[in-house]
Amino acid sequence: MEEERTHEAHTIFSCACSCGQKCSFLLLPACPSKFSCLDNQMWHVGNLGKSGLRVSCLGLGTWVTFGSQISDEMAENLMAIAYENGVNLFDTAEVYASGRAEITLGNIIKKKGWRRSSFVITTKIYWGGQAETERGLSRKHIIEGLRGSLSRLQLDYVDIVFANRNDVNSPMEEIVRAMTFVINQGMAMYWGTSRWSAMEIMEAYSVARQFNLIPPVCEQAEYHYFQRDKVEVQLPELYHKIGVGAMTWSPLACGLITGKYSDGVPECSRAAMKGYQWLKERVNSEEGRRQLAKIKELHLLADRLGCTAAQLAIAWCLRSEGVSSVLLGVSTADQLLENLGALRILSQMTPQTITEIDALLGNKPHSKKELRA
Amino acid sequence: MEEERTHEAHTIFSCACSCGQKCSFLLLPACPSKFSCLDNQMWHVGNLGKSGLRVSCLGLGTWVTFGSQISDEMAENLMAIAYENGVNLFDTAEVYASGRAEITLGNIIKKKGWRRSSFVITTKIYWGGQAETERGLSRKHIIEGLRGSLSRLQLDYVDIVFANRNDVNSPMEEIVRAMTFVINQGMAMYWGTSRWSAMEIMEAYSVARQFNLIPPVCEQAEYHYFQRDKVEVQLPELYHKIGVGAMTWSPLACGLITGKYSDGVPECSRAAMKGYQWLKERVNSEEGRRQLAKIKELHLLADRLGCTAAQLAIAWCLRSEGVSSVLLGVSTADQLLENLGALRILSQMTPQTITEIDALLGNKPHSKKELRA
Amino acid sequence: MEEERTHEAHTIFSCACSCGQKCSFLLLPACPSKFSCLDNQMWHVGNLGKSGLRVSCLGLGTWVTFGSQISDEMAENLMAIAYENGVNLFDTAEVYASGRAEITLGNIIKKKGWRRSSFVITTKIYWGGQAETERGLSRKHIIEGLRGSLSRLQLDYVDIVFANRNDVNSPMEEIVRAMTFVINQGMAMYWGTSRWSAMEIMEAYSVARQFNLIPPVCEQAEYHYFQRDKVEVQLPELYHKIGVGAMTWSPLACGLITGKYSDGVPECSRAAMKGYQWLKERVNSEEGRRQLAKIKELHLLADRLGCTAAQLAIAWCLRSEGVSSVLLGVSTADQLLENLGALRILSQMTPQTITEIDALLGNKPHSKKELRA
Amino acid sequence: MEEERTHEAHTIFSCACSCGQKCSFLLLPACPSKFSCLDNQMWHVGNLGKSGLRVSCLGLGTWVTFGSQISDEMAENLMAIAYENGVNLFDTAEVYASGRAEITLGNIIKKKGWRRSSFVITTKIYWGGQAETERGLSRKHIIEGLRGSLSRLQLDYVDIVFANRNDVNSPMEEIVRAMTFVINQGMAMYWGTSRWSAMEIMEAYSVARQFNLIPPVCEQAEYHYFQRDKVEVQLPELYHKIGVGAMTWSPLACGLITGKYSDGVPECSRAAMKGYQWLKERVNSEEGRRQLAKIKELHLLADRLGCTAAQLAIAWCLRSEGVSSVLLGVSTADQLLENLGALRILSQMTPQTITEIDALLGNKPHSKKELRA
Repeated sequence: MEEERTHEAHTIFSCACSCGQKCSFLLLPACPSKFSCLDNQMWHVGNLGKSGLRVSCLGLGTWVTFGSQISDEMAENLMAIAYENGVNLFDTAEVYASGRAEITLGNIIKKKGWRRSSFVITTKIYWGGQAETERGLSRKHIIEGLRGSLSRLQLDYVDIVFANRNDVNSPMEEIVRAMTFVINQGMAMYWGTSRWSAMEIMEAYSVARQFNLIPPVCEQAEYHYFQRDKVEVQLPELYHKIGVGAMTWSPLACGLITGKYSDGVPECSRAAMKGYQWLKERVNSEEGRRQLAKIKELHLLADRLGCTAAQLAIAWCLRSEGVSSVLLGVSTADQLLENLGALRILSQMTPQTITEIDALLGNKPHSKKELRA
Repeated sequence: MEEERTHEAHTIFSCACSCGQKCSFLLLPACPSKFSCLDNQMWHVGNLGKSGLRVSCLGLGTWVTFGSQISDEMAENLMAIAYENGVNLFDTAEVYASGRAEITLGNIIKKKGWRRSSFVITTKIYWGGQAETERGLSRKHIIEGLRGSLSRLQLDYVDIVFANRNDVNSPMEEIVRAMTFVINQGMAMYWGTSRWSAMEIMEAYSVARQFNLIPPVCEQAEYHYFQRDKVEVQLPELYHKIGVGAMTWSPLACGLITGKYSDGVPECSRAAMKGYQWLKERVNSEEGRRQLAKIKELHLLADRLGCTAAQLAIAWCLRSEGVSSVLLGVSTADQLLENLGALRILSQMTPQTITEIDALLGNKPHSKKELRA
Repeated sequence: MEEERTHEAHTIFSCACSCGQKCSFLLLPACPSKFSCLDNQMWHVGNLGKSGLRVSCLGLGTWVTFGSQISDEMAENLMAIAYENGVNLFDTAEVYASGRAEITLGNIIKKKGWRRSSFVITTKIYWGGQAETERGLSRKHIIEGLRGSLSRLQLDYVDIVFANRNDVNSPMEEIVRAMTFVINQGMAMYWGTSRWSAMEIMEAYSVARQFNLIPPVCEQAEYHYFQRDKVEVQLPELYHKIGVGAMTWSPLACGLITGKYSDGVPECSRAAMKGYQWLKERVNSEEGRRQLAKIKELHLLADRLGCTAAQLAIAWCLRSEGVSSVLLGVSTADQLLENLGALRILSQMTPQTITEIDALLGNKPHSKKELRA
Repeated sequence: MEEERTHEAHTIFSCACSCGQKCSFLLLPACPSKFSCLDNQMWHVGNLGKSGLRVSCLGLGTWVTFGSQISDEMAENLMAIAYENGVNLFDTAEVYASGRAEITLGNIIKKKGWRRSSFVITTKIYWGGQAETERGLSRKHIIEGLRGSLSRLQLDYVDIVFANRNDVNSPMEEIVRAMTFVINQGMAMYWGTSRWSAMEIMEAYSVARQFNLIPPVCEQAEYHYFQRDKVEVQLPELYHKIGVGAMTWSPLACGLITGKYSDGVPECSRAAMKGYQWLKERVNSEEGRRQLAKIKELHLLADRLGCTAAQLAIAWCLRSEGVSSVLLGVSTADQLLENLGALRILSQMTPQTITEIDALLGNKPHSKKELRA
């Protein structure tokens, strides 16, 4: 066996934790408080849901960017920065850029020569091709789709395979059996869901228990200032009941939060891209305008806290009890470094700040009351 | 053995079905079209969810009224009118009028001497007394609470025992085991849930399957013009997946729909009663005022269809795919006869009328999309 | 404990078996060949299917007769003759004569004072009353219906409770759970099916195995010269796979076989009774006429064998591999004694005779071929 | 990774659906009505039973033709036409032409280079060789037989492996365990039954549930004008209860329906081939003659609808509720194109036309009555 090399994390920012030990800010192997800091309310690396898998609290997504919006060189640069700063989670999907996101990701991993055991790769299956049999969550497509992904990624296995959405035309038993099959074949370590309802996740769990199959460990969900209900109300309940963790995406609401669209949709932005007409419409809607007003206030708060609006938004996501990891979508190194800086202000996500943001947003969901009335 | 008496239904309204045969309008023993009328889209007596239990599509509730708002003579009068017109479902709860609703209901049943097998009694357990151990869904309270109900009802068993709300402090396994216990003891034929979320119901089902216990057959849910989501979107999915039926209550939104509050809250109405401050506030809120405007339009539609606003509202509830039975809450014989008359206009719940009402309400929930996009 | 009295069977006919021992012809406690005679091809008392329950190969039915066509005195007389000749099986149903068949049967049993352990009582549940909830196989009706039957029979339990037909509107899980419940409550020893398809019986077995419930032991099926398929092809397969036995009825095809209708429908016959118009039509149909021609030939064969046409028909039923017991429907003592005499000619049901009858009937069903081609 | 080629469907016939969009007539990726047309009563691609597998409603069979009756060039030609017109289902069996059908099919697939995920291959196991151990459904033969098929097909897996008939000498547990094994080994995606009785399929399901094995998804059954019972009565029940779909064969009753044999058996027809003596006898029997008379009437009806008798027969099969796919057996390109044209007239399978055909055939099976009588 070759010698196991120690991961030498490059510390850019100092750790916000008060444990007193020197450690890189994301991977904190020696932190006595189990990689969680500040009275366990924030953490840098932690377990994904109640599974044993350790993921960094920030992950790098490849949606829109890899194999499409950005060059392969930029993709490699972003991966390197992320990895060196302790990000161990990289997320993709068979449908991203028609498979090219996976190809780019796979090429970079191969080139870098990082130990396979030092990072976590996740992909998502649902839309794999034009043929009827290449879409959905049939056993055929889950298996063939994942084989295609592994081939493009040049990997023997992914760490988590997600069902990219639920397929009401495939029976839950077939889906859970197929996910269990790919895990038992060694093609994936775990499986998860993406954009499923709480009831559907519970149904998957029910079927897994009924037939002694493997239940999902994680739900990927959209989560930001303007989309809170599922992650703040439903997923914590699932976490407590069946251990499912939350990996969230779009912390900046497709850029809405950065203030990019405060004065309309610029030519070069995502909302102006082909296929993103819906985003443009959303920005220009009445609701969109109300949201932009709130974003301006959040910018003032960020100024006060000495961080950017994006950092505040990401740190705000991380403060949520059920969130295991937040996926970042960036197209430049500066954006990435800025986003990673969100960890610096985790310590400022105090109850007072949280309350202030909630008041400002005015959309705090009612959590399930536990009163016996 | 006492002689088996034939049920002599008193026919008030003629049957809306086109079978051509003379029959009472709720129980149609001779109807050749499987007791369903109008091309099987509407029905008078049907199965509760996918269970084998046959319930009339209108049931009589006892909330607020029995043992409290109305005299025992009036209660008896209402029961007699309902039973003679084919209503076979009578619903109560241990908490209604602190147990007096059950006592009144039990006394009437005993006095009338109706065959126990000819009707369905349901009660609900959660709030049974002042002591800590007399509330919630602990095994102790489910069993002790139901024993108390049976004693007050002077019955050996109820047909369905409902958990009146979920109890997040009792483990689901304990709840489902206790429900299975009371069924296996013969104290109830079935069990159901009341005001549980879809995920909680799925969890109960999951636990039942995992430990070979008995799953619930029915959810009691609020359903009327202004509360649609759960009954129209979530319960149909549960019905298709695990067979759970819907028994709905408040078809008139606590009287809001009858126009009673159109000019403010009258002294003698429910909204003026002690403990109903919330209803008064609701009526007087901005949202409440918007709803009252819509109700005025619905009155015009009812006029056009030749029925009352209450009849239209009840028939509208019955047209919903997942609804097995609608519970009526009435305090006078006239109200009851008027409500029962809703069956007369079931045949007018055509797609056109439904579309017109949806446009008027403007709150039709999106059903789950099945597109593979 | 009171002394166990020996059952003194009144031997009318000498036993056809070659075991050499003196024994009453139905109950043969000392027969060394396990109550089966003649190379195990015929038997007098045997196990019902693969269950442990021992039933006489001829049973007494109460359909049409008890509580209706015949007087209670005649019913008592028939029961006594049957019991004294070793018949230990008496079958009824909640629907027969609207419950009066059960009342008559119960009164006779009580009056006679026979030991409860010395005979087998079976009843059937499905049609129990006029109310919607008093019919079908809901849990409610199975339990309430059987309680009603036990009350009319003045018994604590029946030996087998049958589902009188399948109820496609009740889920199989509910039916099997309810049957298991009444057995666990001590209200029945076993449960069975009546007029169910092979697939439905297999489904009941499947559900019983899946949820660790009690599977059925027996199917009641119509069986005679002109109705052979189910009993000769499907039930033997079920017997071998899951142990379900066959208890058959109408060995004389409602009298058709006795020659009663050979010259038209006489005034006093069953086919002339109210509600039996279908039988009259059947007798007078083209198919009916073809069958009557065959019956004439079978009369000649009976003459040759020295028995009556009815005896031949009953013995022919008993020769079938899967048949555990044949239920007789008689209205006079002479008829009963004649029918019981069928046992005398069991020894003449040789392969040659069977072949001759098959040739004559021309409707021998193809048994499932086991060839590997 | 090789470049993902878009499926370029060659549109021969215009789509019968009213979606207004241009699309190939079988695979309708852009059809807004969920790939189903004509009010969801007919479809072009759909799920196989309740499984997630998407199959085209017409499939290409290889029985009699591949590796035997037709040249390999013709076979390739037929496959190409079928695939280009949206057929994604190709069926074979180890026994067809003693394995040569599979060899031919495999060679063509390899030569064409179609993406494996874009089509569905099914084969059937039962008769694999001369040795005793090479036939039937022993675990040994299921595994060895399928390995042989995969080797001849030059594939890693088939999509569905069928048990070509039931084997009463192999215990059901062994069969279901072996099928589960080959699926868990990745040698097949699903398993199905061919020519099994409804009870046998239910038994397989029961065993699968009892031992937590994988249940079958599909039954292959003969289905045409003169063979209706199983597909119209029994399979729909199985579909509703356990999700098993129907893939049917012989839509033209071995050519009987095309009128080929109306004037006797021509020298060159299938009925004149060696080993098809049974077909010749059937054509010449009294029953056969009655059927030919009806076929003449159906030709007149086809004329009236503007289609051929074969097209009418195939469209008639597709109109049946439980049928997921109809397998075509053709030996020329013209025949195939004609058969595929059946989709054009799906819209003419109106209730009136169906009623007319039923009257003409006079053999409409009674569906299970749901009356509570």
